Amino acid sequence: MNSNSILQIKNVCLLIVLISFQIFPQLDSLKLNQYNLVADQITRKALTKKTGYKLLQELCAIGPRLSGSENSLRSIYWAKEKLENFGVDKVWLQSVMVPHWERGSVETAEIVKENGTNGKSLNILSLGGSVATTENGITANVIEVKNFTELKERQNEVKGKIVFFSRTLDESLLNTFAGYGGAVDQRFYGAMEAAKYGAVAVLIRSITTKYDNVPHTGVMGYVDSLQKIPAAAIGYLDSDYLHNALIENPDLKINLNMNCKTFPDTQSYNVVAEITGTEFPDEIIVVGSHFDSWDVGCGAHDDGAGCVQSMEVLSFIKELGIKPKRTIRCVLFINEENGSRGGKEYGKFVETNNENHLAAIESDRGGFTPIGFDVDTDSSTLNKIRSWLPVLEKSGITWIKKGGSGVDIQYIKNTKAKLGYVPDAQRYMDVHHSANDTFESVHPRELELGSASIAIMAYLISEEGF
Amino acid sequence: MNSNSILQIKNVCLLIVLISFQIFPQLDSLKLNQYNLVADQITRKALTKKTGYKLLQELCAIGPRLSGSENSLRSIYWAKEKLENFGVDKVWLQSVMVPHWERGSVETAEIVKENGTNGKSLNILSLGGSVATTENGITANVIEVKNFTELKERQNEVKGKIVFFSRTLDESLLNTFAGYGGAVDQRFYGAMEAAKYGAVAVLIRSITTKYDNVPHTGVMGYVDSLQKIPAAAIGYLDSDYLHNALIENPDLKINLNMNCKTFPDTQSYNVVAEITGTEFPDEIIVVGSHFDSWDVGCGAHDDGAGCVQSMEVLSFIKELGIKPKRTIRCVLFINEENGSRGGKEYGKFVETNNENHLAAIESDRGGFTPIGFDVDTDSSTLNKIRSWLPVLEKSGITWIKKGGSGVDIQYIKNTKAKLGYVPDAQRYMDVHHSANDTFESVHPRELELGSASIAIMAYLISEEGF
Repeated sequence: MNSNSILQIKNVCLLIVLISFQIFPQLDSLKLNQYNLVADQITRKALTKKTGYKLLQELCAIGPRLSGSENSLRSIYWAKEKLENFGVDKVWLQSVMVPHWERGSVETAEIVKENGTNGKSLNILSLGGSVATTENGITANVIEVKNFTELKERQNEVKGKIVFFSRTLDESLLNTFAGYGGAVDQRFYGAMEAAKYGAVAVLIRSITTKYDNVPHTGVMGYVDSLQKIPAAAIGYLDSDYLHNALIENPDLKINLNMNCKTFPDTQSYNVVAEITGTEFPDEIIVVGSHFDSWDVGCGAHDDGAGCVQSMEVLSFIKELGIKPKRTIRCVLFINEENGSRGGKEYGKFVETNNENHLAAIESDRGGFTPIGFDVDTDSSTLNKIRSWLPVLEKSGITWIKKGGSGVDIQYIKNTKAKLGYVPDAQRYMDVHHSANDTFESVHPRELELGSASIAIMAYLISEEGF
Repeated sequence: MNSNSILQIKNVCLLIVLISFQIFPQLDSLKLNQYNLVADQITRKALTKKTGYKLLQELCAIGPRLSGSENSLRSIYWAKEKLENFGVDKVWLQSVMVPHWERGSVETAEIVKENGTNGKSLNILSLGGSVATTENGITANVIEVKNFTELKERQNEVKGKIVFFSRTLDESLLNTFAGYGGAVDQRFYGAMEAAKYGAVAVLIRSITTKYDNVPHTGVMGYVDSLQKIPAAAIGYLDSDYLHNALIENPDLKINLNMNCKTFPDTQSYNVVAEITGTEFPDEIIVVGSHFDSWDVGCGAHDDGAGCVQSMEVLSFIKELGIKPKRTIRCVLFINEENGSRGGKEYGKFVETNNENHLAAIESDRGGFTPIGFDVDTDSSTLNKIRSWLPVLEKSGITWIKKGGSGVDIQYIKNTKAKLGYVPDAQRYMDVHHSANDTFESVHPRELELGSASIAIMAYLISEEGF
């Protein structure tokens, strides 16, 4: 064997060792012990004091928080006061102009009683942003389609009719967000697509995993180049009913009556609060969630849970006497549901002030048991974050993966790492955007372990940096 | 550099490669594709057809299934018929004599109205196996203690009194089973320990994570050498009430009245059903759960969920036309809650018939979202099972670890691997052994993903062997 071969073998060995080290960086045992101690303290505090859960109860008692509503302002002032009471270093409201849409008092869809068809009232909920019907409602025939392809194929049948988009959420998928993503086009684009062919209104099957009759709303879109037609969601059971009724009598008519309305944009706010870092105060770590909700239920999981988790992170730090090296900032973004104005405004603020955001963590997938974190970052930062998994396991985190983060924090430019907190979401679409999204649907331990997971992650970023 | 050094370097390299291979064995891509396909099919079938969830609804409609009860027999015949209807290769009942204890019709604990103390009725539930009180009940003072150490220290105060064990489940622990384990000594040994010092009865704080007033029962023990005194659990809220009432008036008395009774052992059965392996029919893989429940609620999570999951494994195999190489056998063990007679009988059967059990999987931690599998095996088998994680992720499994398996399958000797299915259990102790354990507390998707996880694991063992 010549010396070249020896060198090659040595190089291969070195490479293997380097790769191992690269793939599996590890915390040294001194740090690991310190971090484990803090992670234990945070988890115990979460599970015993349940500050976030108590905050959520108060928040839900105020009611839903649709952007532009009085309730949303009341909730904003409530959050500001709560954060001030934690004794954090700064709390402020950040001005944001938001859309203002109101559901109104009339919202009915009745199968017209004629030609042997029994009149039946369907459970509906106007989609967010929909225009109203005329005052006595729209009475029209109904065409049921599964998707935009079928709609296009049958475009000649659409004129003057109500289009009923009846595709279900694909419940065969493990990931309920993927199921949601596969059905939500009907809700957002349905009115635009149907208007192309002269439809007078659209009804969509509620996007849900729960076999009940509670309708689920959500944002919809219009373009100025097309007629703006009313749009509402029907409960799952009544969607089945309508489907069967249409088989029996394809000529049935529905009278749809809605008086929802869009008002001029109105004043609102993001709520921002921070604990200043002791060593690197200019390096900011955001823990954020969206503060607005839809106007049914109380937005407990979407996204009251995320908000009280973000707030509780600051509460843990104060109560446990933790002195974070870097600044940890809680941001409650307004208007994620129908405009993302809060997220955009915060992004502008960061840019204007040339702030250095090291990381941002968003919680907007419900207040359920922690599973993992999706991280949008480069591979060496991802590997560093992954090396913290043994600490994060203290609150139930099982993995850290490359993935998308959140709607609001995407507007913070030049952030080294954007993280999405991922809880188990098997029950999320049961309640999402519906009257089912109540305080009672949130479990205290599941919610609190989320708070703990986010707090531990923020703490580790603060101590370790990137 | 001499040839010895070269050899050393080469050996180190070889060692690194071998260690890497040893720690991370991997399925080849052809097998991985095949297994992923089947895992997808199973998961989709689970989430869409929901056979297990429908079975659970039927089972819960029969009512609770305490060993020795008529209901338990009715449920056993129901399960046998369901399994036969799946068209599996064999179904049989395995004779087991089980304990027969009945709660009776009287179960009250009242704070005696005297000396300014208001009478109040406490929510109680006799512990499983408890003796009755005398006919008019026991009226006695109460001594509250947190644990057996305190009981021993205050032994001189105990004689003639009711001992109130008031220690709570430690809710600060991430693992609710660890919390349960830290409090359950009061329930099982409380009557024995208190009887040592002349107590006349014991009351224990319900072991629960839910802040409500629903009492939680469970098995308790006696020894013949000590007086057998009655024992009951008190709801959490009433435990707080009693604690405060005792501070106000340490001399208060309680009248405890229970007429529960133990009858002679009675005939019961394990339910066994199997699909015979095509290549190695004598190598058996058990999927098992305990069929009995306590006599309140309907034992939906404990362990109706596990039973319908075990049954559904066979249903998947039949419906998807899978031909497992090894025999997959569903065993519904009777009497786990108060005697484990079913587990012991099955273990004896396996030994007597010299059967070869390759693996056994138990589901007895509730019908919640899958997290992982605890595996009791040697390290090379563990590594092999771990290499299947990418396939098991299809149904939501996030880890495979060394750990304990289950109460019933521990009696199967010489099994290469015993596995415990581990779902998220943050909500489990809310319902465990109580009237809260109803069908409505089970979520269809969470339950079904458990069925899928167990089925995929059984399928992989059947294909790969050990």
